[in-house]
Amino acid sequence: MTDLSTDFTRTRAAFHLPSGVTYLDGNSLGPMPVAARDRVAAMMQDEWAQMLIRGWNEAGWYAQPRVTGDRIARLIGAGDGQVVMGDTLSIKVFQAVSAARALRPGRRVILSDSGNFPSDLYVVQGLARAIDSDLRVVEPEAVAEAIDDDLAVLMLTEVDYRTGRRHDMAALTAAAHDAGALTVWDLAHSAGAVDVDLLGADADFAVGCTYKYLNGGPGAPAFIWTHPRHADAAQPILQGWMGHAAPFAFQPDYEPAGGVERMRVGTPPVIALAALDAALDVWDHVAMPDLRARSIELTEAFIAQVEASCPDLTLNSPRDPARRGSQVSFRHPQAYAVMQALIAQGVIGDFRAPDVLRFGFAPLYNTAEDVSRAVGIMARILREGSWDRQEYHARAAVT
Amino acid sequence: MTDLSTDFTRTRAAFHLPSGVTYLDGNSLGPMPVAARDRVAAMMQDEWAQMLIRGWNEAGWYAQPRVTGDRIARLIGAGDGQVVMGDTLSIKVFQAVSAARALRPGRRVILSDSGNFPSDLYVVQGLARAIDSDLRVVEPEAVAEAIDDDLAVLMLTEVDYRTGRRHDMAALTAAAHDAGALTVWDLAHSAGAVDVDLLGADADFAVGCTYKYLNGGPGAPAFIWTHPRHADAAQPILQGWMGHAAPFAFQPDYEPAGGVERMRVGTPPVIALAALDAALDVWDHVAMPDLRARSIELTEAFIAQVEASCPDLTLNSPRDPARRGSQVSFRHPQAYAVMQALIAQGVIGDFRAPDVLRFGFAPLYNTAEDVSRAVGIMARILREGSWDRQEYHARAAVT
Repeated sequence: MTDLSTDFTRTRAAFHLPSGVTYLDGNSLGPMPVAARDRVAAMMQDEWAQMLIRGWNEAGWYAQPRVTGDRIARLIGAGDGQVVMGDTLSIKVFQAVSAARALRPGRRVILSDSGNFPSDLYVVQGLARAIDSDLRVVEPEAVAEAIDDDLAVLMLTEVDYRTGRRHDMAALTAAAHDAGALTVWDLAHSAGAVDVDLLGADADFAVGCTYKYLNGGPGAPAFIWTHPRHADAAQPILQGWMGHAAPFAFQPDYEPAGGVERMRVGTPPVIALAALDAALDVWDHVAMPDLRARSIELTEAFIAQVEASCPDLTLNSPRDPARRGSQVSFRHPQAYAVMQALIAQGVIGDFRAPDVLRFGFAPLYNTAEDVSRAVGIMARILREGSWDRQEYHARAAVT
Repeated sequence: MTDLSTDFTRTRAAFHLPSGVTYLDGNSLGPMPVAARDRVAAMMQDEWAQMLIRGWNEAGWYAQPRVTGDRIARLIGAGDGQVVMGDTLSIKVFQAVSAARALRPGRRVILSDSGNFPSDLYVVQGLARAIDSDLRVVEPEAVAEAIDDDLAVLMLTEVDYRTGRRHDMAALTAAAHDAGALTVWDLAHSAGAVDVDLLGADADFAVGCTYKYLNGGPGAPAFIWTHPRHADAAQPILQGWMGHAAPFAFQPDYEPAGGVERMRVGTPPVIALAALDAALDVWDHVAMPDLRARSIELTEAFIAQVEASCPDLTLNSPRDPARRGSQVSFRHPQAYAVMQALIAQGVIGDFRAPDVLRFGFAPLYNTAEDVSRAVGIMARILREGSWDRQEYHARAAVT
C-alpha cells in the first residue's frame, strides 16, 4: 500500500492551470498535468525513436494496459490484476454489457435509466438489436422498482452527467443480484471524483474514461474492471489478438486470456498511455476519503453561495451530498448565454441542453477560492443581465 | 491535388533512424518522424493546456478524425469524406464486417483465408457467434473458387502479414459482386506500402492501421473507409455518440450521422492523432506509383542478393512482384535464432512462427544500402553459423 498523506496544495501545483481561468469543467476534460508533456516527449524519443519495435518488450508497452490498470484499481476500490486499459468508454460499455448478458443466457432485458449518458444508451441499443435483447429505460428514481426476474443486466452510470445525482451502487447491485441479474457500472463521473468501492459494493463489471477527473488528456484510453468471480467466465463479443491467451503464437482460433486481460482487443495506445501515466502520478499519495471530503466541501460551498447570491438559478442537483457526485448543476432559462458570459470572463463550466449550467469540482486542483470567484462573477453577470447584451457564437463543448 | 514530386532523400531525412541500425521492420512499427515529438508537445502545451475543454472546437479536435481521414484517403485510392479515424484495427474490422453482413441479410457466410492476420479471424469469430453467421476460412489460393451464392461478406487482408502475398483486389471484388456479396479489405500491410486503389477496385469497405508504413507511432489509431454507395446505408453494431447525427443534442435514441462519420464511436484519441498528423506530412509530395516502383526495386534486390549469398534460406514470398506487397520473407529451420543474431548486429526484421524471417521495405526511408548491408550481415551469420553460438533471450516482437 502506498503511503497516503493527501496534500492538495501539492496536487494543485501538479497541473497546468492557465492564469485568469477558474476551471470548473474537469468533469469534461481534466487539465494537463505539468509532467505530462515531457513524459510523452521522453517516451517518444527514448522508446519509440530509439528502441523502435523492441519497445514492445524493452519499454514494457505490451504490459502497459494492465500496469496502468493496477494504478486505477486503487482509486475505484478494485484489486490488482482486475483492471485493464484500452479503447474508448463506448467500446468498453459494449464489452461489459455483452459479457454480462452472455452470463445470463435465459434473460433478455437490459435495464438502464434516462439519466445515463446517451452514448451508453446508443451502444446498448446497437448491441440489443444484434443479440436479440431489450433495452428498457426508466427514470433514475424508478430503477429499483424496475428490477425484476426478467432482468439480465442492470447498466447504470453511477453519477449522472447532468445533475450529478449519485446512485447507491451497493444497494442497487444487491437488488439486481437478488433478482438474479448482473450489474455494469459506468464510472465516467465517479473515478477520481468520489470514493468508489467496487469490491465493497459487490459489483460485477465496471467501465470508465480517464480524461475527466483522472486528467489523462483528450481522448485518453478507457478502462474496464471485471469482478474476479466473472473474470475467467466472461466471453466478450469483441475478440482481439491482445486479449488472446497467446497473442504471438498466431493461432487460427481465439482462446481468451485468463482474467480481465481478455477484455483487451487491439494494439494499445502507447503514446496516450504515457500521458495518462504522468497524470496518475498525481494520485500517488491521495487518500480517497480525503478526496471525497474535499469534494463535498467544495460542492456544499458552491451551492450555498449560489443560492445566497444568484436567486434566478434553480438547483438541479441533489441537495444531500451523500446522493451527489462531484459536480453541481443549476437551471436557468438562458443557460447557454449565461455560460458563454461566464466563459468570456474566465469561469469555465459547461452548458447542457436545454437549460443546464454544469460545474465540476475536481478536488485535486479546485479550491475554495475557485468557488467564491466563480459565484461572484456569475452573480454579477446575472444581476447586470450582461449575458443578454453579448453575442455568443461558441458551440457546445464536449461532455 | 497536391503537387507530387517524390524525393526519397527528403522522405528518409524526415525520420529518426538510430545510427548503426538497418530497420526492416516498418511493416510492424514505423520509425518516429522527426517532427512528431515536437508536434505532440505543441498540441499538448498550446491546445490541451491552454485551451482546455475549448480545444474540441478551437483546435479542431472534434473534426480531426475526418480531417486526418482525408489525408489517408489519397494514399489508398479513396475520395474526400470517405475515411474516418479511430479505435484499433480489430474494432474497425468488427464494424466493417458487421455493417457489410447487415447489408446482405439473407446470407450467413463470411469468407476469409488462412493467411489473414489472426486478430481479424478472432474478431469475425466473435461477431459470427453473436449474429448467427458462419466464418469459412480457406487457403489464400482457394478464395476465388470458394465464392458462391451463400456468401455475404468476403473479408481479406490484401497483403499477407507473413508471406507478403498480395491478393488481386479488383478481381476478387468483382467475383464477390458477381455472386451478390460484399467485400471488406484490411489494408494493414498495404496502406503506405503499395498503390492501393479502393475506388478503382470497386471495393465496399476497407480498414487499416497507421503504425506500420504510415508511421503514426505505437498504437496509432485505425481508419475505416466506406464506399459512398454504402455510406448512408451501413448500420454498424457499435453505435457511439461520436457517430450520432447530433452528438451534442444528447438525444435518447441513436440516429446515425450521414456518411462514414457514423463509423466513429467514442471520443477520438487527440494526442495520438497529433503524432499521426506529423507522420502524414511526410507523404505530402509522394506519388504512389513512385512509391510502388521503389518498393519493387528494394524487394527485388533483396530477393536476388539473398538467393545469391544465403543458400540455406528458402523464399517464402511470391517471386512475381505484382503478386507481392512491400515485404519479403524467407524460411530457415532456426529462424528465431538467426533473427536474434541479426538484431544483435543491428539488422532489425522479425520472426514469425514457426520458421519465418520477415523483412519489410518501407520506400519512404529504406534504401539500396539497407538491402546490401542486411544481406551482407545475414550471409556472414549463416556462413559462420554464429547464430548457433549465442544465447538469445528476447521475446517475439509485435507484428
